[in-house]
Amino acid sequence: MNKSNALEQILSPTSVAIAGVAPARAGQFNTGQLFLDTILEYGFKGRVYPLNPKGGEFSGLKVYASVKDVPEPVDYVICCIRAPLVPQLINDCAAKGVKAVCVFTAGFSEIGSEEGRELEAEIGRLAQATGVRIIGPNCMGIYSPKAGLSFATDLPKDSGRVALICQSGGNTLYLVRAAAERGVRFSKVVSYGNACDIDESDLLEYFIQDTETEIVAAYIEGVNDGRRFHRVLKGLSAVKPVVVLKGGSTRAGRGAAASHTGALAGSDQVWESLLEQTGAVRVHSLDELVDMMVTFRYMPVPQGRRVAILGVGGGATVLATDECAAAGFALPPLPQEIQQELLSAVGSNAGNILGNPLDIPPVLSSDEKYRELLRTVLRWDGIDFLLYQVPLRGIMLSLSVACSIFDSQMGNIIKVSGESIKPVAVVMHYLTSAESWQAASDFQRKIYEAGLPVYHSTASAVKAIDRLLRYHQRHEILRGACPERRKVLRSPEVARGSPKATPTSE
Amino acid sequence: MNKSNALEQILSPTSVAIAGVAPARAGQFNTGQLFLDTILEYGFKGRVYPLNPKGGEFSGLKVYASVKDVPEPVDYVICCIRAPLVPQLINDCAAKGVKAVCVFTAGFSEIGSEEGRELEAEIGRLAQATGVRIIGPNCMGIYSPKAGLSFATDLPKDSGRVALICQSGGNTLYLVRAAAERGVRFSKVVSYGNACDIDESDLLEYFIQDTETEIVAAYIEGVNDGRRFHRVLKGLSAVKPVVVLKGGSTRAGRGAAASHTGALAGSDQVWESLLEQTGAVRVHSLDELVDMMVTFRYMPVPQGRRVAILGVGGGATVLATDECAAAGFALPPLPQEIQQELLSAVGSNAGNILGNPLDIPPVLSSDEKYRELLRTVLRWDGIDFLLYQVPLRGIMLSLSVACSIFDSQMGNIIKVSGESIKPVAVVMHYLTSAESWQAASDFQRKIYEAGLPVYHSTASAVKAIDRLLRYHQRHEILRGACPERRKVLRSPEVARGSPKATPTSE
Repeated sequence: MNKSNALEQILSPTSVAIAGVAPARAGQFNTGQLFLDTILEYGFKGRVYPLNPKGGEFSGLKVYASVKDVPEPVDYVICCIRAPLVPQLINDCAAKGVKAVCVFTAGFSEIGSEEGRELEAEIGRLAQATGVRIIGPNCMGIYSPKAGLSFATDLPKDSGRVALICQSGGNTLYLVRAAAERGVRFSKVVSYGNACDIDESDLLEYFIQDTETEIVAAYIEGVNDGRRFHRVLKGLSAVKPVVVLKGGSTRAGRGAAASHTGALAGSDQVWESLLEQTGAVRVHSLDELVDMMVTFRYMPVPQGRRVAILGVGGGATVLATDECAAAGFALPPLPQEIQQELLSAVGSNAGNILGNPLDIPPVLSSDEKYRELLRTVLRWDGIDFLLYQVPLRGIMLSLSVACSIFDSQMGNIIKVSGESIKPVAVVMHYLTSAESWQAASDFQRKIYEAGLPVYHSTASAVKAIDRLLRYHQRHEILRGACPERRKVLRSPEVARGSPKATPTSE
Repeated sequence: MNKSNALEQILSPTSVAIAGVAPARAGQFNTGQLFLDTILEYGFKGRVYPLNPKGGEFSGLKVYASVKDVPEPVDYVICCIRAPLVPQLINDCAAKGVKAVCVFTAGFSEIGSEEGRELEAEIGRLAQATGVRIIGPNCMGIYSPKAGLSFATDLPKDSGRVALICQSGGNTLYLVRAAAERGVRFSKVVSYGNACDIDESDLLEYFIQDTETEIVAAYIEGVNDGRRFHRVLKGLSAVKPVVVLKGGSTRAGRGAAASHTGALAGSDQVWESLLEQTGAVRVHSLDELVDMMVTFRYMPVPQGRRVAILGVGGGATVLATDECAAAGFALPPLPQEIQQELLSAVGSNAGNILGNPLDIPPVLSSDEKYRELLRTVLRWDGIDFLLYQVPLRGIMLSLSVACSIFDSQMGNIIKVSGESIKPVAVVMHYLTSAESWQAASDFQRKIYEAGLPVYHSTASAVKAIDRLLRYHQRHEILRGACPERRKVLRSPEVARGSPKATPTSE
């Protein structure tokens, strides 16, 4: 089957077989069994067939000796058998009419031996010859919530608009779990490993037309065909935001990438200019990749770079101001009349700082007064967006008392932001103990369910929002259009600086 | 009382009075009551006296109308009454022979009014005239576990070797809580606010001779006397590591600092060269400040910049390699004979990468084999330290299964690192859900109890270890000594770069 046409079906299989399901040896795991149990527990709605030459029964299911013995059609096979046995499995799959095989098995080009490279080349040739598409080897394969297919039981069951392709299984698991905590849900996720057949370009090309996907995130160590990758990435970036983390950006890292996925990683300079030319957004860590998924998904594009910071804690707002300024955002001073309005809303308590940043200790105003203050700030035409900071363990109160206060403040923010067209981003920071992470997790759910982006530091929030603004500015120039809604106004502080955000060094 | 002589007593009071304890108004808190209950719950062993002109009883204690009415001596007064009433309290404290007053009350120079500035100057003059030392105003005061005194109930009860001075109460609370989770314990912590009397220089000078303190951390927005600060910081840095986070490093941030603590923040250039000249270590975020407390406390100084990365997850080790290289660390390739030794220890499983970085999936070796592998790596004279990475939610297993595996690996690391003189740093990362933070918290306790430093990302670990190496290199040059133990070898990768660590851009 042609790769591009195949992907639509491959990413939504209705029947799955797992090759290499066997009893675990003492103190170890059988990954075939792990995949099987994961698929069942996650709730795959299609048919599932364990495979093992010895037959028998596993997790209540009949085990078939070969994929060819399965009485019904099989769409997708997860391969957990040893590397030298994989070519035979591909041939069996071809005979059975299987659409794709996810080769979880490692021990191919990444081990660096001639044998490993040849074995990988062989299964690549088999894919070409038979039309059985291969994902991997050395990968986790497909997470497709709509199809009910997952490689971990704790990934969200509901679908979303973000697609992820990832050359590392561990990074895939982290990225999905971390982004899910902040409200990102996925259309399709592919952990694609060594990419001997279906590669990064095939996947990115598929997402150009995939109507379920609005945002694409990628962790890539190396590409098979630089020219095609450039063309496809440019085509995809023209229609959807694409965020790329390049693994192996240093010489040493490229060596590590070769051992990991056999990737020919390419120099960092080449990558920098490639991503720049194609209009993709480059990030430099997994957490930045998560931040951009959250930002493209939840943060409306501010009209410009003027921000008001509202938070709790004088020190926190001082540092936030530094971080905003360093990222090229301006904090316009609150005009006298706005200060007066705020003063009449919340009164003249000694702890209140009614400037910009604004610091209103949480115990010093009622819900009604706080909402009045919020409305006044958001109405003020001197700012383009609001950053709201919650310093969860930066106050002396016990966590439970702090939570009850922040909970009502959060309710006010959610209510008032819903009435305003101005973007509001929430920074949930000063997290320390496991208990505070539990509280943060509950808050985060409320925040993203209300449609707001949530970050874990002001620095990461403003870095992400800066990238969002640059992305839209760049793509409007590319399109020759500049709708008022998305116009990026430059503050004097930014105009002075270099085109990239750098810390103000005065 | 003379400030420097006074601090020893002030930081270990044996009796405390709280001015302004009153019933809370509906939906609000009375901070006096909050301080009172906190001190009692934390377990202060001295006497505690609530003060309120109306008298009565609070939390089971008799309330005195004035500090002068307390029948026994009072060392330390926490002032939660309104700003205009503070001068009278200082006078009463002078009459009573109180040593120091922590003025929690806000509404002084930080509000920017002539009135506020004058009131602050007045209490400063009163401190000078009466000898009653003032901490603050606009601060939390003293956390001194040895004295049993705290401003939050959840701060550790055991003492340690790190002192912290902090111009923000919220930042103080976060720093202590975050550092405590990673094993840092404190000698004395002072949240000192606007610093109208006891200031940053007084405190730093005190820590020069304080034998309980080995490491000093500081969050500073502005200084009262630049020349003295320079002299004191230089003197302190000569004998103990001092780590400084400057709040208000940008022009906008300086404005915010003025509203927060009335600080005259000074240009960032001046600060950069001041910290460079004095030999203090500058950091740029609260989390970097915590990382340096952990590093100076738990990380032995490696002999050089050659690191081995041992972890789980190919993608994680690729990114870790990039991060090490970008921070100026070298990952020497594993020599053939070491690879052979490792191979004979753990066997030739397909998932193992026996290079540098090393990636050994947790299910592929027994405890005994894993310890053999660890011993071989640590014996190898090609490296100066080991980074061990735990990707808690970067594997497909459920959290509880993952934890049981990582727990035994961690046991092996702790055991083997105890036998080796080579430093081992642990990176506990890929934390996502609240449950994974709970597991991480339990692991962290084991790690720091075994005397190892723990970090939440490889990037932050290598940044901190880079600062540690630079610190010792610099201070050995200053001292004209270069003991073999602490010699900082430069890898070729570093020698090529700029003196500051910058990402390798090739």
